[in-house]
Amino acid sequence: MTTSTSIRLSKQIDFLLEIDSLKNVLRQNLLVDGSRRENTAEHSWHIAVLAIILHEYSDTETNLSRIIKMLLVHDLVEIYAGDSFAHDESQLADQRERELEAADKLFSILPEEQGKDLRAYWEEFDARKTADAKFANVVDRVLPFLQNLHTASGSWKKHSITREQEIKRMYPVAEGSKTLWEFVSQQIDKATEDGLLKA
Amino acid sequence: MTTSTSIRLSKQIDFLLEIDSLKNVLRQNLLVDGSRRENTAEHSWHIAVLAIILHEYSDTETNLSRIIKMLLVHDLVEIYAGDSFAHDESQLADQRERELEAADKLFSILPEEQGKDLRAYWEEFDARKTADAKFANVVDRVLPFLQNLHTASGSWKKHSITREQEIKRMYPVAEGSKTLWEFVSQQIDKATEDGLLKA
Repeated sequence: MTTSTSIRLSKQIDFLLEIDSLKNVLRQNLLVDGSRRENTAEHSWHIAVLAIILHEYSDTETNLSRIIKMLLVHDLVEIYAGDSFAHDESQLADQRERELEAADKLFSILPEEQGKDLRAYWEEFDARKTADAKFANVVDRVLPFLQNLHTASGSWKKHSITREQEIKRMYPVAEGSKTLWEFVSQQIDKATEDGLLKA
Repeated sequence: MTTSTSIRLSKQIDFLLEIDSLKNVLRQNLLVDGSRRENTAEHSWHIAVLAIILHEYSDTETNLSRIIKMLLVHDLVEIYAGDSFAHDESQLADQRERELEAADKLFSILPEEQGKDLRAYWEEFDARKTADAKFANVVDRVLPFLQNLHTASGSWKKHSITREQEIKRMYPVAEGSKTLWEFVSQQIDKATEDGLLKA
């Protein structure tokens, strides 16, 4: 191995070890069996599989391979910035700033062009403008929604979430998949009738 | 949504909820910070990212997108079959049988053609014959190796692993990446010198 390969590989390994700590970032939602809170690393795995399974419901032609890459890296900044709860306005206020700092720190561990490439995926996901990013955002919202439905909506009840808030939070689903939005809307109506979401 | 779409989506959602329990399957190795054992879901996320970062070291031309899909699903059978520790001969003896039963049960939750498709990825990974599967196996072995190096080799010492055993276990790396094999061999030699692996 040449010295430059050795230096390059060493940076890549440093990055791979650093991101191990995503396994310690806890999200608000519980596992489906209700046993504990989910961490962001296992969430990232789950949404990547969800993308494979539900990709057929994308409204437009999208690139599954790019979507999966986006999903695998889009939460990496939480290693330093933490998870911002979707319904907590105070956390969301400075979220962008915290995440930008985190991205600077994290992606610079990698060889330069590789760091830029990964960062671009993260930015594309957040900007939600490309068709791939729109569908990646569908996926990222559908999973916690399903989890909430099947844990007697623990997170909804705990935080007194209203129907309106949930519709607003889930709206990106409508931007990428008519079929999944139809499913989500029906389930929100049902959850409201059942008193899991406030009317 | 038509009735057939609704039935199809319902099967897919059942599958996605069922695989949540991969987050409760514990592996032998610890997180890099040593705080707890790793679960298979977060491991699957981590190896998929590792594949993205280290794909350039594949000896032959391989399809990263297929490799990532393979890595994301290759451990799903552990939901029913459990994780088999790489150095426990008694567990490995009936592993194949347990995993085949698990695969029958798990993949049949999905719409038929989708279940077959995913199962084929799992079988390809295990058979280790295609170039994509060879590199996916490189990835799957390199990560726990790195983790072991950085947790003062907890798993090696706990199970009194010898240099020879570790070389045998890691040998698939040599089948897919000369560069990564060079790295791994050097580190095994160093770990043996340091007394982390038995000579």
